Amino acid sequence: DPIVDVDCMTSNRTVTLPGLVNMAIPASVDSINREASASLAGGFTTVGVNAETNQGHVALTDVTSLEHYRDQIFSSHTTAHCDLGFWAVFAAGSEASRQAGAVDVLVQLAPNTIGLLIDLTTPATTAPSSTASGSVASVFATLDLLFSRWPSNRAIFVRASGSELASVLYLGALHNRSVHATQLTRLDDLQLIVRSQARRAQQPSLPRVTCDVNPFFLFSNTLTQEQRTRHFGASAGTEADIRGIWENLSHVDCFAVGDIRDTGARNSSLDICAFGLQYALPMLLTAVADGRLSIVDLVNKLYTHPVRILNISPSSDTSVSVDLDVEWHVPESAPIFARAPLRGSVQRVTLRGEAVLLDGILISQKASGSIVQAALVPVESDKTAKSV
Amino acid sequence: DPIVDVDCMTSNRTVTLPGLVNMAIPASVDSINREASASLAGGFTTVGVNAETNQGHVALTDVTSLEHYRDQIFSSHTTAHCDLGFWAVFAAGSEASRQAGAVDVLVQLAPNTIGLLIDLTTPATTAPSSTASGSVASVFATLDLLFSRWPSNRAIFVRASGSELASVLYLGALHNRSVHATQLTRLDDLQLIVRSQARRAQQPSLPRVTCDVNPFFLFSNTLTQEQRTRHFGASAGTEADIRGIWENLSHVDCFAVGDIRDTGARNSSLDICAFGLQYALPMLLTAVADGRLSIVDLVNKLYTHPVRILNISPSSDTSVSVDLDVEWHVPESAPIFARAPLRGSVQRVTLRGEAVLLDGILISQKASGSIVQAALVPVESDKTAKSV
Ligand SMILES: [Zn+2]
Ligand SMILES: [Zn+2]
Ligand SMILES: [Zn+2]
Ligand SMILES: [Zn+2]
Ligand SMILES: [Zn+2]
Ligand SMILES: [Zn+2]
Ligand SMILES: [Zn+2]
Ligand SMILES: [Zn+2]
Repeated sequence: DPIVDVDCMTSNRTVTLPGLVNMAIPASVDSINREASASLAGGFTTVGVNAETNQGHVALTDVTSLEHYRDQIFSSHTTAHCDLGFWAVFAAGSEASRQAGAVDVLVQLAPNTIGLLIDLTTPATTAPSSTASGSVASVFATLDLLFSRWPSNRAIFVRASGSELASVLYLGALHNRSVHATQLTRLDDLQLIVRSQARRAQQPSLPRVTCDVNPFFLFSNTLTQEQRTRHFGASAGTEADIRGIWENLSHVDCFAVGDIRDTGARNSSLDICAFGLQYALPMLLTAVADGRLSIVDLVNKLYTHPVRILNISPSSDTSVSVDLDVEWHVPESAPIFARAPLRGSVQRVTLRGEAVLLDGILISQKASGSIVQAALVPVESDKTAKSV
Repeated sequence: DPIVDVDCMTSNRTVTLPGLVNMAIPASVDSINREASASLAGGFTTVGVNAETNQGHVALTDVTSLEHYRDQIFSSHTTAHCDLGFWAVFAAGSEASRQAGAVDVLVQLAPNTIGLLIDLTTPATTAPSSTASGSVASVFATLDLLFSRWPSNRAIFVRASGSELASVLYLGALHNRSVHATQLTRLDDLQLIVRSQARRAQQPSLPRVTCDVNPFFLFSNTLTQEQRTRHFGASAGTEADIRGIWENLSHVDCFAVGDIRDTGARNSSLDICAFGLQYALPMLLTAVADGRLSIVDLVNKLYTHPVRILNISPSSDTSVSVDLDVEWHVPESAPIFARAPLRGSVQRVTLRGEAVLLDGILISQKASGSIVQAALVPVESDKTAKSV
């Protein structure tokens, strides 16, 4: 039972949850420590990282940059406070991702990663510079090749919408590979996932299709659409989509706090995302208090399902104690999607038997995070498991 | 045996083929007679028509326009010389196709059609004018709805490339509907079809996926790429694609002469396509003479497979006699893709027992074409048939 203990001896109810998993956040080399600490404050003991520079996402398309990145993070002076996994990133907007050798490089990176993250939401800013020489392949042809070569024990995530999402799901069906659609914000897209799952219930030989939503998007109904697109991307869903996703939340496999920077803000530094991570769990606990979410569902979406989908082993003796009843207000400096009065907070985080965080304060002397990798056996067989 | 007779008594070998089927050509109300006659001269006794105006393709998105169109064609003074079937057209570039009521109208049209033709190659020329009111849906959402409502006894064709093609194939997989990819010009796209067929061989419960190529595209290797895009569309394949498609011709289910107008020509009238139709079969017969194609394969791709895919009944006593040995040159006025010296020509066309064309000349007193519709029983079961 993942819910370890409910302590009823204090006036406030306390629940001990397993160490939570945030599957994919963007992080820069300079700020990874801050994000790791904010993650820990938010109850996340495992974080998937897709690297970026000040210019935005950077596809980890060469081994040197990945190794450099990992070395920097795990060098003595920058050891992270939570467990980190790394994504290999295929970004459609990055010409590097479409160079002839990109697939080779991504596949070489695979052993150092928790999976392949395909981001189709960043359109190409420049036209391919070398179509004449034929050295830049179409995005779809490159993805097809990637699907045939990406190792079967590591996840494939896709961030896309509409027909682009469907085209990647079709590659999954053709190559018999599970696909996880990440950071959905549109009811249309969720319904495509739901229908894919329904079709698989009839045809169990089809590969598994799963999805996540950003919990902050679920609470963004008080924002204007312009504010939503600034925080959740150009094709962010509307209030109607938010309502629709809440109504279909049982079909959402996971929560994942993705890129929550304010792209419209003047001094939008990469680090702004760090300021949001610690509010995700309290906001979901508030939904639990309001009866909109069960604590079992919360654990499924932030632990059980992510662990299965990423094919990772949870750390032993790792847990998060949360106070379900404490009420509090976020500081003025918090991102605008985290403004509601909250009920519930993280009391204590234990990482491999050591208490590392108490009441929002890091108490461990040294950062003891480790690198997370997918298990060597393939992702849970598509043939036998009908749902995660 | 569809090859009725080989007559060896004359010095030239003569073969009698069944009346051939050209699945989808664009045609305007004003010129349909000319196209029907040219089709007959080319050995086609059945032609699928997608209607258009001088402005280009027009989606038959209202019942009145379809009825008006059909009435005009079959009124006493404009009866066609070959059998005609009509397509309901969903054109992504047409805002009308994305209006809220478009799906209802297309489904209402279905009983008068041979199928639904989804054209994603014509990009929207104008942004949706009414997104604020929500009355223009995304192309993909509209297609999804169409797939769920289009009657199962009528074909679904799609003209698309790359990820857009894959997204429609995924809708087919989700809705358990066969999809036919029409007018492929890229090896990438053909390979996507081939892999879809291979996957279905492993998973027979998946729906059937078929495709056609324009025979003229197969012979366009002497054109420049600029000429090819003028005649076969902005995303027309290259010489390498032509070679690749020839090498994989066994995976191409049908030949279909589609839209072969010269879009770059100054006075590109709609009727220019009529001048090409009669050269398609002779060019393919030349490939037979050259040993690049068997006569059985030709009949499969121009008769047997189209009849099954369209779910239509061939007319009785309908045949085309061709001379396999006659050599000739096309006139200077012919489209540039029909310039090669040819070997083989149509001698006689018989429609329902009546000789209607002899040595290129219409001899029937009255036009005796009828309207073709899909059979009432669903398209050949996806469950039982592994290939067409
Ligand atoms: Zn493939
Ligand atoms: Zn903001
Ligand atoms: Zn950051
Ligand atoms: Zn579960
Ligand atoms: Zn559907
Ligand atoms: Zn021309
Ligand atoms: Zn015409
Ligand atoms: Zn066959």
